[in-house]
Amino acid sequence: MSDEVCKRLTWVAVDWGSSNLRAWAMNAQGWVLARAGSDKGMLALAPEDYEPALLEAIGDWLPASGRVPVWVCGMAGARQGWCEAAYLPLPTPLNGLARGAVEPAVRDPRLNVRLLPGLCQHANEAGRGFDVMRGEETQLAGLVAREPSFTGLVCLPGTHAKWAWLEAGTVVRFATALTGELYALLASQSVLKHSVDDAELAEPGCREAFVAAVREAATEPGRFSQWLFALRAADLLDDSLPRGPARHAQLGARLSGLVVGLELAGMCHDLPDAPLTLIGSEALCARYGLALEALGHDSRRLDGETAVLAGLGLAQAGS
Amino acid sequence: MSDEVCKRLTWVAVDWGSSNLRAWAMNAQGWVLARAGSDKGMLALAPEDYEPALLEAIGDWLPASGRVPVWVCGMAGARQGWCEAAYLPLPTPLNGLARGAVEPAVRDPRLNVRLLPGLCQHANEAGRGFDVMRGEETQLAGLVAREPSFTGLVCLPGTHAKWAWLEAGTVVRFATALTGELYALLASQSVLKHSVDDAELAEPGCREAFVAAVREAATEPGRFSQWLFALRAADLLDDSLPRGPARHAQLGARLSGLVVGLELAGMCHDLPDAPLTLIGSEALCARYGLALEALGHDSRRLDGETAVLAGLGLAQAGS
Repeated sequence: MSDEVCKRLTWVAVDWGSSNLRAWAMNAQGWVLARAGSDKGMLALAPEDYEPALLEAIGDWLPASGRVPVWVCGMAGARQGWCEAAYLPLPTPLNGLARGAVEPAVRDPRLNVRLLPGLCQHANEAGRGFDVMRGEETQLAGLVAREPSFTGLVCLPGTHAKWAWLEAGTVVRFATALTGELYALLASQSVLKHSVDDAELAEPGCREAFVAAVREAATEPGRFSQWLFALRAADLLDDSLPRGPARHAQLGARLSGLVVGLELAGMCHDLPDAPLTLIGSEALCARYGLALEALGHDSRRLDGETAVLAGLGLAQAGS
Repeated sequence: MSDEVCKRLTWVAVDWGSSNLRAWAMNAQGWVLARAGSDKGMLALAPEDYEPALLEAIGDWLPASGRVPVWVCGMAGARQGWCEAAYLPLPTPLNGLARGAVEPAVRDPRLNVRLLPGLCQHANEAGRGFDVMRGEETQLAGLVAREPSFTGLVCLPGTHAKWAWLEAGTVVRFATALTGELYALLASQSVLKHSVDDAELAEPGCREAFVAAVREAATEPGRFSQWLFALRAADLLDDSLPRGPARHAQLGARLSGLVVGLELAGMCHDLPDAPLTLIGSEALCARYGLALEALGHDSRRLDGETAVLAGLGLAQAGS
């Protein structure tokens, strides 16, 4: 297997985040020959640890001689990472990310590593606040690799959900909502931890609870912090909720709907008539798609892994 | 000193919360003869631990013989507390809290303990959600002790900020905002912990940062979760912020303004033309007063300790 990979390997794609790394062996046609990964993310590594961590993941793929391009996006390029690839300012053509890449020094002569930059946005320009992204720009580049003149709004749900406005393949503005982190803090660290469980929307009553909460928070975002405490009070008082695990699952679905609805409330003036493009995992994008549908908006999904590979491929091809 | 207290003691007031207890020796005129306290709150106690914890705090005040009324509000009356004093439903006349008090069994013949009830609100009535309070109702009773026919809106800022609508001394509706807990979670457990410090508004630039954030969140609450991440990005990018500790203090003041502004956004339709009554500590009420002023509303303050003593006194006098 590794021999087969070695023979056909053209380059390596790496998404190196805060808490893990994922790597793909790629052939000349942009097909995935093999995958690897580890939990050695940026938070666990000093700069000198990156090359050994990379070799541990992809060493088996490398030929005995010759130099293999390794394109990396994500937190490995942060100031606290392997080597800083400084943020590119807006507007940023997404087919030009490679121009901001940096090449960390390596010992192994087979490695030719390039770290892609993130994007930054300065405030005091129309409708913009200070913002940064690192990793998501490569997924956006993946969208542009497929649709070079893409114009529209894109949402990448997650711990820190990113919304990007693109014009003809160039990022002109973006915003981040703390949605995923807010949900996690409230569900596991607040007084609500006694009342909510993480819920799949397929569980009984959860889809309805999620949709109702999205609508309420998107319509009256100012009542968000009241609705949070009301989840606890409902757990104590609401006889219409089921008993047992389904009770806390429904309240968890409602909490999820409240934080997603709050996020969408902030975007409501920007939501396009055309379908919004979501990039990410199937489950999370399905949840956002349902929330958008509840507010009368269509969406379409680009798979997150497909996007990151296409984005790294665009950088690799253009360099 | 204790001898003097013993001679003049008429009753004992106790505010027994989740994490501490505070007790006051009271004379017949409602004056405070002595104070005591401990960190033995509800979360640290099993039912059988309450009497020893109470005697440890107030035992020195008790006469050798005779039975002393001890009026207790707060979490000691919760289901997980000493003995449950069931929530009273709305509407609740605040001069009648004593009717819902329960008397836990005690061994010491000098103790005559009464635990005051909390209030609960059921949903599906006009403008109301499920809600509970336990402890704050006694502070509201303290307001009514001073102004028996009080009609208006009252805010008790805190971890779980309470807003109560009173009509002629009766609670007809209330709401809870998770404001203090939301601030604490974001400031100490989220990605923002690297960028914000708790700030006094007297520190340079903090008052202005707080007021600006209150206005923004109260005006556009839907952008709340975007503004949260923007605090982190501003820490990375904003050259107009001072360097050093003042930077994180200003960002902390801004975070405080965002959560208070979000809370006020939910109340904006209810804010009266007459001054809003705030009940609580001087520092926290000053912060809320400033936030209300920024939105064009007057406020007045009733001290939290004064209120709880007056509320327990009202129960004691009426029993």
